[in-house]
Amino acid sequence: MKKVYLLGACGSIGTQSIDILLKHKDIFEIEAISVGHDLTLAKKVIDMTKPQIVCFRKEEDLLSFTDYNFEKVFGDKGLEYIAKVNRGNDELLINALVGSAGLKPTVCAIKAHKDIALANKETLVMAGDIINELLKEYNVSLYPIDSEHSAIWQCIQGENHSEILNLIITASGGSFRDKKREELVNVTRDDALKHPNWHMGEKITIDSATMMNKGFEVMEAHHLFHIDYDHIKTVLHRESVVHSLVEFKDHMIKAELGVADMRGPISYALLYPHHEDFDGETLDLSSVSTMHFEPLSFERFPCLEYAYIVGKKGGVYPAVLNAANEAAVRLFLARKISFLDIERIIYEYISKEYNVEANIDNILELDRKIQNEIYDLHGGKTW
Amino acid sequence: MKKVYLLGACGSIGTQSIDILLKHKDIFEIEAISVGHDLTLAKKVIDMTKPQIVCFRKEEDLLSFTDYNFEKVFGDKGLEYIAKVNRGNDELLINALVGSAGLKPTVCAIKAHKDIALANKETLVMAGDIINELLKEYNVSLYPIDSEHSAIWQCIQGENHSEILNLIITASGGSFRDKKREELVNVTRDDALKHPNWHMGEKITIDSATMMNKGFEVMEAHHLFHIDYDHIKTVLHRESVVHSLVEFKDHMIKAELGVADMRGPISYALLYPHHEDFDGETLDLSSVSTMHFEPLSFERFPCLEYAYIVGKKGGVYPAVLNAANEAAVRLFLARKISFLDIERIIYEYISKEYNVEANIDNILELDRKIQNEIYDLHGGKTW
Repeated sequence: MKKVYLLGACGSIGTQSIDILLKHKDIFEIEAISVGHDLTLAKKVIDMTKPQIVCFRKEEDLLSFTDYNFEKVFGDKGLEYIAKVNRGNDELLINALVGSAGLKPTVCAIKAHKDIALANKETLVMAGDIINELLKEYNVSLYPIDSEHSAIWQCIQGENHSEILNLIITASGGSFRDKKREELVNVTRDDALKHPNWHMGEKITIDSATMMNKGFEVMEAHHLFHIDYDHIKTVLHRESVVHSLVEFKDHMIKAELGVADMRGPISYALLYPHHEDFDGETLDLSSVSTMHFEPLSFERFPCLEYAYIVGKKGGVYPAVLNAANEAAVRLFLARKISFLDIERIIYEYISKEYNVEANIDNILELDRKIQNEIYDLHGGKTW
Repeated sequence: MKKVYLLGACGSIGTQSIDILLKHKDIFEIEAISVGHDLTLAKKVIDMTKPQIVCFRKEEDLLSFTDYNFEKVFGDKGLEYIAKVNRGNDELLINALVGSAGLKPTVCAIKAHKDIALANKETLVMAGDIINELLKEYNVSLYPIDSEHSAIWQCIQGENHSEILNLIITASGGSFRDKKREELVNVTRDDALKHPNWHMGEKITIDSATMMNKGFEVMEAHHLFHIDYDHIKTVLHRESVVHSLVEFKDHMIKAELGVADMRGPISYALLYPHHEDFDGETLDLSSVSTMHFEPLSFERFPCLEYAYIVGKKGGVYPAVLNAANEAAVRLFLARKISFLDIERIIYEYISKEYNVEANIDNILELDRKIQNEIYDLHGGKTW
């Protein structure tokens, strides 16, 4: 049995992961989970998964679970505790945490010889080089859960790494894909939250509108597949049917496509290299009928270019971009700054000099410092 | 060095194969070729490839090559001679012959322990089951050159056969894709020869218009990939950018796409499992801009259904369909029958009873018998 440690069990990726895990009780045993602020949902998820350890957000949350027998931990230390626990030879951490809180648990889990199924973007965006070194040192595997990276991963199965020419990541275009730059001046929080294809969390919906999310995915792809930035392309694809593509040296392109259902990539990450039925839906190609592909320009979407710039620069710069973006998006969501302020703030921070060694502690400290500085400049974090 | 025997060297697949072979002189040595009726082209191809053996169409063709030192053979016996020759441990026969003449050389080559790169459709359509048994018995590999099968083959690299759910073969739709059945009554030979996407040989252009060609590909896919007919689908895709797709048990679909350039599939078949640059063109997805997918109906394209019927029936029935189609298409090209007569003739022949054991000799005899009978019924083979 593979022992599973699921961080972020109550989120969208978390609950869908549980769905897949419970379909394969012969393979997986859920050892530990972390839950969120919604304690009613937490109770439901705990009853479904019957874990040995649960990490809560705050110490007082434990009070609602005094009747339960499982081991109780809380906060960032609790997440790290779960990541570090070692109860077998075949262990998997599913990191479905949102934000920079996801970085440290990934590091701890690798050091505890756990394989990683990764949905947390910040892990690779903030510290991709360090994570890759750790994976090598501890001989641990990392499986991507994101649909774009899952697509690329599937397309390179059985292929030689040296024969990959380009990775091509598709982008739905976000809420403002049909707006010109001059039309972005007065767009509101509510406009930005109307994603044309999906209902997702607020942060990622804004990141889609700025195309920063695609920039993050470019950086993640770089670290996951060891392809240099000049060979990672993006293309606007409104229908989101093609999840991403890989071009080989003979210009043959492989693509993975299908109905948008995150259980697909989750199932593939958990059961790799197997494609197991999870009661998903078949894509009826003739009902899709038409697929469009359009170029994505750096002029229109400067945040995408920023990702390439900091990615190539390396060091702490990707973490700086992530911190500046996170603070700016939170301020925009709190109606403290305008939509175009997001990219201005990011540009300001990635243009500075940082003479800091890129290690996990420095990266996390810089992340806190930059975010607090940006909040303070705009009236403080009042939400 | 791999010794290569190239049958059909002067055709479109043949000359493109030579292009790839000569790019990899460190891997391939062209041992023998067969040439066609155009002796000027034959001379050019011989000078380029410098083979040890050449097979000509007719005995009198040898007279034009008395100055040359290579071994000279001719006709069907000559093709078989080349297929049987054994001059090393690592030998490959590229079968780019057109028509039923391609079947026997494949059989001979397998028995001579040569791997096969197959462009000849009739080999698998007429005798797929027998060929598969021979491949197993002689432990020989068969690599498809057709773009649709190459796409499927690429998509299943690194995957488990038992996790394949459906093969999905794309069809451009042929010359009459936008015509209703009632509009087909009076279409002419010249109308039928105007393929919207490609310039190909006359026979295959008509087979595309009747959708018989897609039916052949369904049968070939069945034999190449060991997938039952109920899990081989077809879809109309006007742009011919997606060359085919594979759906797995988790409903993830992999596709191979690219610029239409047969050197891609040829190069992949020759260099498998490698993707080597052959100075081909990159597909610019944003310049393709739009891709369409539509259902293909058996009512509109009965020849496609006939392929499924005879494929499932097995035995000599696929060879019967092939023979009836070949004769009918030749008659249509000779302006002796109408376009809709093609499917009527096929239906008539596949509806008969044949109590013949399906072996290579019987299949070839039945092929000749049916074709001659159909020609005789329509005024004889006068062309």
